[in-house]
Amino acid sequence: MADGTGIETLIDLMARLPGLGPRSARRAVLAMLKKRAQLMAPLAQALAEVALSAKDCRVCGNISTTDLCPICTDPARATGEICVVEDVADLWAMERGQAFRGRYHLLGGTLSALDGIGPEDLGIPRLVSRVAEESTREVILALNATVDGQTTAHYIADALAGTQAQITTLAQGVPVGGELDYLDDGTIGAALRARRRL
Amino acid sequence: MADGTGIETLIDLMARLPGLGPRSARRAVLAMLKKRAQLMAPLAQALAEVALSAKDCRVCGNISTTDLCPICTDPARATGEICVVEDVADLWAMERGQAFRGRYHLLGGTLSALDGIGPEDLGIPRLVSRVAEESTREVILALNATVDGQTTAHYIADALAGTQAQITTLAQGVPVGGELDYLDDGTIGAALRARRRL
Repeated sequence: MADGTGIETLIDLMARLPGLGPRSARRAVLAMLKKRAQLMAPLAQALAEVALSAKDCRVCGNISTTDLCPICTDPARATGEICVVEDVADLWAMERGQAFRGRYHLLGGTLSALDGIGPEDLGIPRLVSRVAEESTREVILALNATVDGQTTAHYIADALAGTQAQITTLAQGVPVGGELDYLDDGTIGAALRARRRL
Repeated sequence: MADGTGIETLIDLMARLPGLGPRSARRAVLAMLKKRAQLMAPLAQALAEVALSAKDCRVCGNISTTDLCPICTDPARATGEICVVEDVADLWAMERGQAFRGRYHLLGGTLSALDGIGPEDLGIPRLVSRVAEESTREVILALNATVDGQTTAHYIADALAGTQAQITTLAQGVPVGGELDYLDDGTIGAALRARRRL
């Protein structure tokens, strides 16, 4: 449908974004066509700029438009704490939590013998030397509570065993606002074992 | 969050698209960041091209990247039938139906005394002269079944009364796959009045 030219290509590309299908992509393109100057042109420019300038931060692996990401260059965040996360989505999630004020290390995945992903691919040797160089006091492993995530966490803990840094991991338990009735047995078990005095 | 630079701007712009909020915009941008060459760069280019070249078709008002839209230049569609629709979304909906093989006329809105939208703003005089020039046999009014849509339809029917064209409108009735129990009273009444022999 549409017009057999650029507009159809645009709808096809938009439909490949997560959360958008052919129908909602069409709706989004229509909205943009109605606001060509206010929305479509700025969006095209922002996309082109980011596509051109986005790169991995040299130190932590965060995606940014500069060589060093804003977190690595922020002097207030040199707290001697490094939080290890799987990817940018997890870093953004941690930042939304507004609880961590140190710096990050992005793995870009988890160890996987099947997919041939080893410690070098995740920058684990780089993390070990970084911990030594920066005299890091604490490394917080904020990996997903999946089998792959936990395997990787154990490997990193072993790799960092020779350094001065203390290795910690996120607490497991009942999520804020969570109802026991809807929680899986594993989470309830973990929350009970990690119970604390009131 | 994100990185205080172009990426945040991009998320803000994406969040202004219909069907996307801050959360899904973030997810879409992350997906694009992971596929910079395959998705982000082509999308930026497609957007820039359409933003630059999209214009209203001189004849029918359809949005296209050419002076005359592909429907108006398709010789197979010179059937002497003109379908009057409110906007591009409705034209696309008609095209998806694959039942109409003539050409279109886009109003770009409905008559509204409150908003100061008169017949000239909707190109109704242009439609009348077009019907005369093209010796149109039939004008199909495919306007929304709302009060505004129907007022506009009546006005157009009056304006075209002096021409040779027959004026028709879309049938009202039970939608395909519709259940009577869930239909409003108005639709059931209209379907009953327009009942036909089996």
